[in-house]
Amino acid sequence: MASTESWPSPPRPRSGEIRRDDVFGRCVLFSPARSRRPSDFKSRSPASSSSNPNSKPFCAFCAGHESECAPEIFRFPAGSLDDWKIRVIENLYPALSRDAEHSPSTADGPDAVMPGKYSLTGFGFHDVVIETPDHSVRLPDLSPEEIAQVLLAHKQRILQLACLESIKYVQVFKNYGASAGASMAHSHSQIVGLPLVPPLVSTRLDSMKKFYDMTGKCSLCEVLSNDLLVAETVHYFAIVPFAASYAFEVWIVPRGHTVHFHEIDHEKAVDLGGLLKVVLQKLSKQLNDPPYNFMIQAAPPDLPSSCAPSVHWFLQIVPHLSVTGGFEIGTGCFINPVFPEDAAKVLREVDGSR
Amino acid sequence: MASTESWPSPPRPRSGEIRRDDVFGRCVLFSPARSRRPSDFKSRSPASSSSNPNSKPFCAFCAGHESECAPEIFRFPAGSLDDWKIRVIENLYPALSRDAEHSPSTADGPDAVMPGKYSLTGFGFHDVVIETPDHSVRLPDLSPEEIAQVLLAHKQRILQLACLESIKYVQVFKNYGASAGASMAHSHSQIVGLPLVPPLVSTRLDSMKKFYDMTGKCSLCEVLSNDLLVAETVHYFAIVPFAASYAFEVWIVPRGHTVHFHEIDHEKAVDLGGLLKVVLQKLSKQLNDPPYNFMIQAAPPDLPSSCAPSVHWFLQIVPHLSVTGGFEIGTGCFINPVFPEDAAKVLREVDGSR
Repeated sequence: MASTESWPSPPRPRSGEIRRDDVFGRCVLFSPARSRRPSDFKSRSPASSSSNPNSKPFCAFCAGHESECAPEIFRFPAGSLDDWKIRVIENLYPALSRDAEHSPSTADGPDAVMPGKYSLTGFGFHDVVIETPDHSVRLPDLSPEEIAQVLLAHKQRILQLACLESIKYVQVFKNYGASAGASMAHSHSQIVGLPLVPPLVSTRLDSMKKFYDMTGKCSLCEVLSNDLLVAETVHYFAIVPFAASYAFEVWIVPRGHTVHFHEIDHEKAVDLGGLLKVVLQKLSKQLNDPPYNFMIQAAPPDLPSSCAPSVHWFLQIVPHLSVTGGFEIGTGCFINPVFPEDAAKVLREVDGSR
Repeated sequence: MASTESWPSPPRPRSGEIRRDDVFGRCVLFSPARSRRPSDFKSRSPASSSSNPNSKPFCAFCAGHESECAPEIFRFPAGSLDDWKIRVIENLYPALSRDAEHSPSTADGPDAVMPGKYSLTGFGFHDVVIETPDHSVRLPDLSPEEIAQVLLAHKQRILQLACLESIKYVQVFKNYGASAGASMAHSHSQIVGLPLVPPLVSTRLDSMKKFYDMTGKCSLCEVLSNDLLVAETVHYFAIVPFAASYAFEVWIVPRGHTVHFHEIDHEKAVDLGGLLKVVLQKLSKQLNDPPYNFMIQAAPPDLPSSCAPSVHWFLQIVPHLSVTGGFEIGTGCFINPVFPEDAAKVLREVDGSR
């Protein structure tokens, strides 16, 4: 069993390792033989090259084009006119349709029905959060208070969707850069309300429950260690997780045990906004403005109370530095060429201010 | 619940659907609102553009450069010299190391140990199958008999690795095109021997067992239907699966119930080689030479006999036509803009000869 103390600088040559992630319940192969030096990792296709926000094309998300978008759900500040800061709108090309009839027999998800060629209607919600009226502004260009407002827009829409009995899970995510799935360059995130608890969420909840049952502790309350730390604030810390599936993956985790993201208040949102800004700036500076995704790894709105001690929300940030190949698709195991301790050290040391 | 009959041509507008895949036990969102016409799908980055096999750079996999490769394990024909057809060699940049000490306490996989920061040594095997001595030849350019020899090389190496008590699963896969993970343009596939059964394999075996327990039937023996068929031979059929995770994903399935790929004989290998050639040519012609992965979805060598009635190997082919974004990473649900019946119809009708 390998040591997990801090590594001397420069990192010494290391042999490979297979680590288990206790949150997702999956294994990751760490393969330094495939690696460059951790500090040499850069995105080969920086997000700005594929979607230069300064070469401003027509953009329906920009202020002044509101009538060309799908219907608006709400805006911040509420009641603002041309001076809106954030708009939450319907997705013009939704993955799920709010107009489809909900299949009521499937309230427990498709696992509750007989196998075979089983299908549900494509009922659900797919919304877009326009994070700024300005086409040239990226999320980490906003102030901590402005990023807090984006997070509070996520919270407000989650609370609206969670009221619907038909919605079993709400996934908040952001795709930045075309190769991370963004079809619009204008800074935005997305919210999908699903009529079932998705499989990876069930697996995560089960895995965290298993850890709790074996140890009496929440897996994320136990996750912080100095050698994995990237940055921290009063209420949150950012780490490269011990068994990161992706090179330079970062998790931002609430310090106190917190089941639901949507319990966040204004003070914590500003604190989280500041840390998210710093982490995104560190990743951008160190890795050459990489395309990335972030996902709020949340709990289902109606989580059974028996799961509350084991479930702890976090924000997962995944830079796109390599492609997923046949090994990962076939096995579900990821290959990560950068040890988390090495990635954390590099990110800890790079300046996170602009 | 939607009908799964054949669709009239041209496909009529369809509403979305959520389908459950009984083999992988996961859900897929079918979202025609996000789609072009199925027949308009093309790869935006054809594999040949990123790795033109005709612009022949130095290549260690070419005949004449054998001494510049990692050590050879075997070649076909056995005993051949300069006239080899296939070479199986060690991977110079292995994801797992055959020289690492095997962690013997982990024979049952990491689930058998206490949670925490748990890791194993990176022990395992990672080999490369050079499928042809000729740099300019792609796999579907080979004859059915030549492709059969590639498949029989996979079989031979699986049998060698399966003899080792330390190896719990063998993953055979091919990455074609840089954006599908291929770092070498010269036609090759890869074989990884793992010291554990990977999580997605366990999930697949469990899901197929669950189907069997509920229905008394093997999920893949039941999977063929006319509207999903792409092509067929005496011993195999190729379908777009009912709940395909990826647009234009194809599965090649043995007609008869067969647990292990490595039970294949010469006659069946030639039959499979011919069908694989046709399917790859259909995908290449229809989708503009897309990057792709294929994976042999096999059973662990020492599968308990109680699982034999429910486990059926298949070959999964996944063209890379879109990117994986935050929604997929967060939920494990895939969004597929092309209904399998529509993809199958398009592939069935395109000419699969060169």
